[in-house]
Amino acid sequence: MRARVEVIGIGAGDPGHVTVEGVAALNRADVVFFLDKPGEARELSDLRQAILDTHVPDGGYRVVRAEDPPRDRAAARYVDAVADWRSRRADVCERMIAEHLKPGETGAFLVWGDPALYDSIIAVVDDVLARGRVDFDVRVVPGVSSVSALAARHRTTFNQVGGAVQITTGRRLAAGWPEGADDVVVMLDAHNAFLRFADDPGVRISWGAYVGTEDEILISGRLVDVAERIVEARERARRAKGWIMDSYLLRRGAGDPD
Amino acid sequence: MRARVEVIGIGAGDPGHVTVEGVAALNRADVVFFLDKPGEARELSDLRQAILDTHVPDGGYRVVRAEDPPRDRAAARYVDAVADWRSRRADVCERMIAEHLKPGETGAFLVWGDPALYDSIIAVVDDVLARGRVDFDVRVVPGVSSVSALAARHRTTFNQVGGAVQITTGRRLAAGWPEGADDVVVMLDAHNAFLRFADDPGVRISWGAYVGTEDEILISGRLVDVAERIVEARERARRAKGWIMDSYLLRRGAGDPD
Repeated sequence: MRARVEVIGIGAGDPGHVTVEGVAALNRADVVFFLDKPGEARELSDLRQAILDTHVPDGGYRVVRAEDPPRDRAAARYVDAVADWRSRRADVCERMIAEHLKPGETGAFLVWGDPALYDSIIAVVDDVLARGRVDFDVRVVPGVSSVSALAARHRTTFNQVGGAVQITTGRRLAAGWPEGADDVVVMLDAHNAFLRFADDPGVRISWGAYVGTEDEILISGRLVDVAERIVEARERARRAKGWIMDSYLLRRGAGDPD
Repeated sequence: MRARVEVIGIGAGDPGHVTVEGVAALNRADVVFFLDKPGEARELSDLRQAILDTHVPDGGYRVVRAEDPPRDRAAARYVDAVADWRSRRADVCERMIAEHLKPGETGAFLVWGDPALYDSIIAVVDDVLARGRVDFDVRVVPGVSSVSALAARHRTTFNQVGGAVQITTGRRLAAGWPEGADDVVVMLDAHNAFLRFADDPGVRISWGAYVGTEDEILISGRLVDVAERIVEARERARRAKGWIMDSYLLRRGAGDPD
C-alpha cells in the first residue's frame, strides 16, 4: 500500500475559495504537513488553520509542523538562492514524510492560491521523490489563484479581447513593461515596481491586498491617479500587520478609460 | 430591491472544481441564464447542466435559455469580429435580464474555468449596465481556470523559479515565441501553433483536452517527441466528438529535461 501526498490549492484566504474536490481532499488527509515560516507570517498560518477548521470541523488528522528554512535574501543570484532554499525544503519535507506518513496513508500540503503559480511545493515533492528514499503517489488539487480572486473582486479580467497576458514578478517588472502583452499580472512585488509606469496616463491598475480576508484592501484606477495611494496603503498595512500579501493587474491600451 | 447578477466560475469540467462559494452562489440563484452555442457544443451545455444538478440537486431555479449569437469567423479583423459579437451578446443578455430577472432576485451566468481568463461575460454584463436600461448589482465568483486544472493533472507549474509566464492564444503563438517568458500557457489554439517550435529540442509541452471530464486526454514530453502524437489525438478527438476543448503549457530552458 503506497502512501499518497496531495498538494491542495486552498485559494486566496476566503474559506469559500476551496473547491469541493479540495474539501474532499482535506477530509481524507491522515496527516497535514505545515511548513511554518518563522516570524511574520504567524497570522497566515492561523488563517490556513481556520480554513482547515471550517472544512474539517471534526479534525481527526494529525498535524506535523516543521520550520520552513529561511531563504538567503542576500545571495548574489536569486535563482541560486531559491535552488538552495528548495533543496533545504526538500530535506525538511523528506524527513516529515519519512517519519510521519505510514504506508497507505494520505498526507496533505496546503498551498495558498493555486499550486501552479509561484509556489514551490510541487517541485519540492518531485525532488523528494527523485532522491528515492521515500516513495508515494502524488496528486495535485488545483485552486483559485490569488490573482483570479483579485480580478473577481475588481470585476475585471486578465486579458483584453484576444490579447496576451504576462504573469510576472515585481523584480522583472522593474526591468520594463513585458514585450508583447498589454495586460500584466504582478505577484511578489516588495518594492512598488509599478511606480516605474506611474507617469503613463494610459495605464490602469487593479490592486488588492489580503484579498478574500476581512482585511481586504482594493484600489483601482488610472495609475497616475492612484499610485501614491497604493504606496501609502501598502506601507500602512505592512506596518500594522507586519506582513503583506498583495498583487495587481496592469492594463494599457484599453480603448475605454473605464 | 436591486436585482443581482452573479458571474460564477465553475472550473474546467469536473464538478469537484466548483468552489464552496460557487456552490453557495449556484444555490441562491433564482434564475440561471444559459447562452447555448448553436450546434457543436451541445455536449458542453449538458456538462454544465450536470454540474448544476450535482450542486443544486433540488433545483428550484428558473432556467432562461437564449442562443449565443454566432461569431463572424470570416471577418477581416479578429478584434472587430469579437467586438460585434460582444455587442450582439449584450443585446441577448440585456433582453434575458430585462424579461426574467425581477427586483431583488439573483441571476447567475455560469462560466467555464475562471471568468478572468478569455471569457467575455464580465465585459458583456458591463456593457449591459452601461446602456442603462436595466440595473443590477454584479458579483464575480472566481473559479479554477482550465489551465490550472491542466497543470494539476500534469503535476507541473506555470512558471519556473522567479520566471515570467505568458498566457496567450494560438493565433499569437503562431507569430513567434513570446518575448521575455520561458513558459507559455496557450489557449484557443485551433491550428496546432505549437508545431512552429517542434524542431527545438529544448521545448517541452504539457497538453490536455477535456481536462477534468471522463474524456480527458493528457500528453506531455519533449515537443520533438510528442508533437505529432498531439496533432493526431486532437484530430481524432475532434472527429469523434465534434468539438474539442484543450490547452497546453510550453516550457523552454528548464535545466532538467524531466
